[in-house]
Amino acid sequence: MSTAHGRLYLVPAPLDFGCAQQSPLEDSMPMQTLRVAASLQHWVCENAKSTRAYLKRVGEVVPLAAPIQAQTLVELPREVHKKGDHQGGFDARPLLAAALQGHDVGLVSEAGMPAVADPGSSVVRAAHQLGLAVVPLVGPVSLLLALAASGLNGQNFAFVGYVPSEPGERAQRVKALEALALKTQQTQLFIETPYRNQALLATLLQTLQPSTRLATSSGLTLPSARNLSADVKTWKARAWALDNATPTVFAIGP
Amino acid sequence: MSTAHGRLYLVPAPLDFGCAQQSPLEDSMPMQTLRVAASLQHWVCENAKSTRAYLKRVGEVVPLAAPIQAQTLVELPREVHKKGDHQGGFDARPLLAAALQGHDVGLVSEAGMPAVADPGSSVVRAAHQLGLAVVPLVGPVSLLLALAASGLNGQNFAFVGYVPSEPGERAQRVKALEALALKTQQTQLFIETPYRNQALLATLLQTLQPSTRLATSSGLTLPSARNLSADVKTWKARAWALDNATPTVFAIGP
Repeated sequence: MSTAHGRLYLVPAPLDFGCAQQSPLEDSMPMQTLRVAASLQHWVCENAKSTRAYLKRVGEVVPLAAPIQAQTLVELPREVHKKGDHQGGFDARPLLAAALQGHDVGLVSEAGMPAVADPGSSVVRAAHQLGLAVVPLVGPVSLLLALAASGLNGQNFAFVGYVPSEPGERAQRVKALEALALKTQQTQLFIETPYRNQALLATLLQTLQPSTRLATSSGLTLPSARNLSADVKTWKARAWALDNATPTVFAIGP
Repeated sequence: MSTAHGRLYLVPAPLDFGCAQQSPLEDSMPMQTLRVAASLQHWVCENAKSTRAYLKRVGEVVPLAAPIQAQTLVELPREVHKKGDHQGGFDARPLLAAALQGHDVGLVSEAGMPAVADPGSSVVRAAHQLGLAVVPLVGPVSLLLALAASGLNGQNFAFVGYVPSEPGERAQRVKALEALALKTQQTQLFIETPYRNQALLATLLQTLQPSTRLATSSGLTLPSARNLSADVKTWKARAWALDNATPTVFAIGP
């Protein structure tokens, strides 16, 4: 790797994006992550507006190397988010021009780790192609916090993204994931847009076998965080409910 | 959940366990994680000796609520690690006696997040069964740092644990994982004990198709961290090598 090139830092963002409640940034971010974020002046981001809001919060903890208005923010094209940028068709190298001129660049998404359940992998691939050093920084990752809190198998697990929103397809997908989890002991994690949390939970309780374990994690890293885990029989007996506003990770397994 | 009961905190540990080089704890841990760790006096752990060493490091950043010798450390039985504690046969409720008496309890493994690619899920399940609140704390998770740094699909991925050490079985397993990754676009992550890193890499380079992407992450969160990602053809052309000492995460995908 050429030392004349900048590095690509993968900068995690807090999980409270769009939430009514916010926690202090230092609670979920190591200081080293905040120091690096404060030192950068070139960004590739999912959304420039939310990146500026994040940088404002960073600046309240560690002084920024340059005012936000003076920083360069390049947005990932919207069509790259939409279809997922792992398809490989998108060449992100032009977004990393600043790194070729010797500047370190930060990649940031709206919440959590960029390129994990979020856009950004095309930028990471481009960085490797250009011979840039890629440096992931520690921060909150909702999927892994949810997995740990589920009590489900953490030695073999899969995250499969969003389940279908159409009720028939959703039930079918849930059944297929349950069959896979029971057969292989592989925990299956998935997500849904928050306003369909209740619909997904209803499908899960109707579709899964009584002895299958179901876990949900909502509001991770927030004071309101709630991690539930029990077999489906117990879920029904306790009549546990979810709201339709809080980002939630779902997991099933034996 | 009874307010008279203590909570179960899932306390991440740094990734430099057993490494020659160590980074300051604050670099990879949010202060909130260190504050909670310093406040606890009851632990369920993979290994008492390494937990004491970790608590000593925590105490250098945040004063401990009680001296280490005065704290209660309960080890997970060795047979539970060995066969993996997701099998469900082990009842960990007795290990959580302190929580029923109103004390918060910490669950900690040797490196990274407990119950993720590490023992602990039986303890989390027991906590849910006892009606304790389960609170995962933010810290480094090597699998997710490696996934983000790989540039591989982060919207659909699986971690499948260790690959077989017997060369014939290893090659067969690698072929099966590649077939799955190419067919479903699901990134496949796996690990190996460090002293077999070079043997596993050799198998991967011999077995995978030239256009399959292979990524490795070694020494995550350390100054020596190294994240490589390219198609197999490029790996061979560059003659990239791994050492047989550094914990490494492997990932393959299209």
